[in-house]
Amino acid sequence: MSKLLITNALVLPMTSAGEIFRGSIGVEDGRILFVSREQETMIGARVFDAGGKVAMPGLVNAHNHISMALLRSYADDKPLMEWLTGHIWPFEARMSRDDVRVGAQLGIAEMLLGGTTTTADMYWMDEAVAEAVDQGGIRAVIGTSILDGKKEKFDADFRALQKYDDHPRISLMVAPHAPYTCSRETLEYARDTAVGANLGLMIHVSETLDEQRIIAERYGMTPVEWLRETGLLTPRTLIIHGVFLSAGDVEILREYGCSVAHNPQSNMKLASGIAPVRDIVSAGVNVAIGTDGPASNNDLDMWEELRTASFLAKVSSGDPCALPAWDVLRMATAGGAKALGLEGVTGELREGLAADIILVDVDKPHFYPRTDLVAHLAYCGKAADVDTVIVDGEVVVEGRKVLTMNVSDVCREANERFMNLREA
Amino acid sequence: MSKLLITNALVLPMTSAGEIFRGSIGVEDGRILFVSREQETMIGARVFDAGGKVAMPGLVNAHNHISMALLRSYADDKPLMEWLTGHIWPFEARMSRDDVRVGAQLGIAEMLLGGTTTTADMYWMDEAVAEAVDQGGIRAVIGTSILDGKKEKFDADFRALQKYDDHPRISLMVAPHAPYTCSRETLEYARDTAVGANLGLMIHVSETLDEQRIIAERYGMTPVEWLRETGLLTPRTLIIHGVFLSAGDVEILREYGCSVAHNPQSNMKLASGIAPVRDIVSAGVNVAIGTDGPASNNDLDMWEELRTASFLAKVSSGDPCALPAWDVLRMATAGGAKALGLEGVTGELREGLAADIILVDVDKPHFYPRTDLVAHLAYCGKAADVDTVIVDGEVVVEGRKVLTMNVSDVCREANERFMNLREA
Repeated sequence: MSKLLITNALVLPMTSAGEIFRGSIGVEDGRILFVSREQETMIGARVFDAGGKVAMPGLVNAHNHISMALLRSYADDKPLMEWLTGHIWPFEARMSRDDVRVGAQLGIAEMLLGGTTTTADMYWMDEAVAEAVDQGGIRAVIGTSILDGKKEKFDADFRALQKYDDHPRISLMVAPHAPYTCSRETLEYARDTAVGANLGLMIHVSETLDEQRIIAERYGMTPVEWLRETGLLTPRTLIIHGVFLSAGDVEILREYGCSVAHNPQSNMKLASGIAPVRDIVSAGVNVAIGTDGPASNNDLDMWEELRTASFLAKVSSGDPCALPAWDVLRMATAGGAKALGLEGVTGELREGLAADIILVDVDKPHFYPRTDLVAHLAYCGKAADVDTVIVDGEVVVEGRKVLTMNVSDVCREANERFMNLREA
Repeated sequence: MSKLLITNALVLPMTSAGEIFRGSIGVEDGRILFVSREQETMIGARVFDAGGKVAMPGLVNAHNHISMALLRSYADDKPLMEWLTGHIWPFEARMSRDDVRVGAQLGIAEMLLGGTTTTADMYWMDEAVAEAVDQGGIRAVIGTSILDGKKEKFDADFRALQKYDDHPRISLMVAPHAPYTCSRETLEYARDTAVGANLGLMIHVSETLDEQRIIAERYGMTPVEWLRETGLLTPRTLIIHGVFLSAGDVEILREYGCSVAHNPQSNMKLASGIAPVRDIVSAGVNVAIGTDGPASNNDLDMWEELRTASFLAKVSSGDPCALPAWDVLRMATAGGAKALGLEGVTGELREGLAADIILVDVDKPHFYPRTDLVAHLAYCGKAADVDTVIVDGEVVVEGRKVLTMNVSDVCREANERFMNLREA
């Protein structure tokens, strides 16, 4: 499909606060040609009558371990270390490349159906994830994982991904696991690899109190201070979680131009803590929103995630004005794009950006009356309201049907693989 | 419809922890005749092939101001008193009986589509709400509101409701607004009315720090201690919110056998605070879950609400095992029924109870793999997964279509009424 014209839409470009208008959008060769307040025509284009649906940028999931969809709700409601050491890690150790691929397919199907057009990922056997991304039609930023003792694994994964170097929907980052699992040497190797390949970095930071304690004992500083010391902080560094960021840490992140990926539901479910998001945003640090992996969420629903981000910021700060509707929608679109190095690529609807567009059906009781559609979307919008999904100009979901894969087959295969792995 | 047979279901009766089995359910004259592990037959019954969907009790929304659906997302993200005095209250003062009725219809449509089969309500012009409940096919417990200076209004509303005295789906409670808006005289009048009519009581309690301060200044005690003093605490008393309950308060509620309605999303969005739900549950107090009114939520989605209850309890207590999946599902079903005086009527699937049954379509990516369906429902279940809804033996939603009203008309009328009220 080289030309697409979306007409009769309520366009929410996410470029100017609260702006929403009836109009049309033209797409050519995967890019947005125009966003117009008129009902334009386009010769030779496939015409999509949006029928009054909201057309907005697809959501950006800034942190994920997609393949863990295969472990969704596995051994839930357990103490953290028992869950990890007794269940999750032994299970993961048995996973093959195809298990990783099918887990990723399952997660991608769920994300596309919920209007997520871009996801970050951080796992292993990344090339299997990349295959699922390539075929599934979503956009992804794949961070190759490294931690102490896994340098060769990292090198192999990183090399295997090179074949996706020119892929229009796949980009790469380097992903040192966390300050407490990476020595100075490992962090510096990750940093140098990122610099050498001209890539950004994503790293779990300040997720738990245990981590704060370990880093303080080892280095006498906070995890963020330690990352500054080791040269990992740049405008292309994504700090994942940031639950225990101090005011000083936030100031450092602002100074170095880093972004933060906030994962409220995972932080709540694992009882990690509540990130000081209102303060991070106030300091002028870019904040994105992620679901984290499905094993700690347990779904990949960005609508719930952005709503929870707002509500949690309000109650934890005591300020009902914290993270208003527009701000969390921006965090889940343009904020995510910036955090993943995709500013100017996705996250907004404007000329020249990739055509990552979702049509949201707002003709449902929870979107009435028409008081404030932006607040409705932020506080009432649901994954199942997403009717059509376009990524890089390709229609990948239409009428809530995924066009790029047989979702029933993926669900069945994921189930079989889970059963086999559990019994292994 | 006097006989209904649901076959080929994954039955989750919510009676015994984690129990789920393939079976059938018979319904006659509005009541559950049997819940069986066999595929039974029933002569003269309409047969419903559930096609592997989960059959479970409908959800119970234990606190609501349904008609405020007309004010959904109206003047959002504002400081609390500006929101109330500058927007909500002046708007409400202009609402007519028909506005209240249409607001209730809109909220009921949304609730039915999300699998809520029973709702509490607390508003005014209750007879208009009762009409919407009667026609909409949901079950409701309507609490007639009283506060200082509104005794005559209360008397009139209460009298007008008497025509629904024998209604199979409507029951009544008396609803003094809150300890800080009701004098001792008003509280005692509410109490005596409830005793005289053999009804339970529902009351907002300990919702905000301001309330705690006001009651401490007036009476030198906590709101719960004050309610004990005024004789309002009985096993038929529902304490709504309970954000600031002390350990002593919880012990009093346990002693008097009261229930608590927890409204996590409203408490978060209004930045009221976080109720100590894990401690309330541990003390043996029955806890139910409510959405509160749509103006402070902004939807009536009990799936999000029960999930948020679990996640918020985990993060606020620091315990990832707090409020596990089964417990929050019980709170949103049987716990709600008990809180509303409907124990033995709804909230479980077993012989003799009213047939309040929902069929949940679990053939979607977010319900795979089949690790643990109870955890999936609690942590991934969504309003839009509800396919069929039966209340009191009547099919009110089928294939996600509401059969009791024209939802498009209701949405349109709600919109028109909002526009007129806003401009008034």
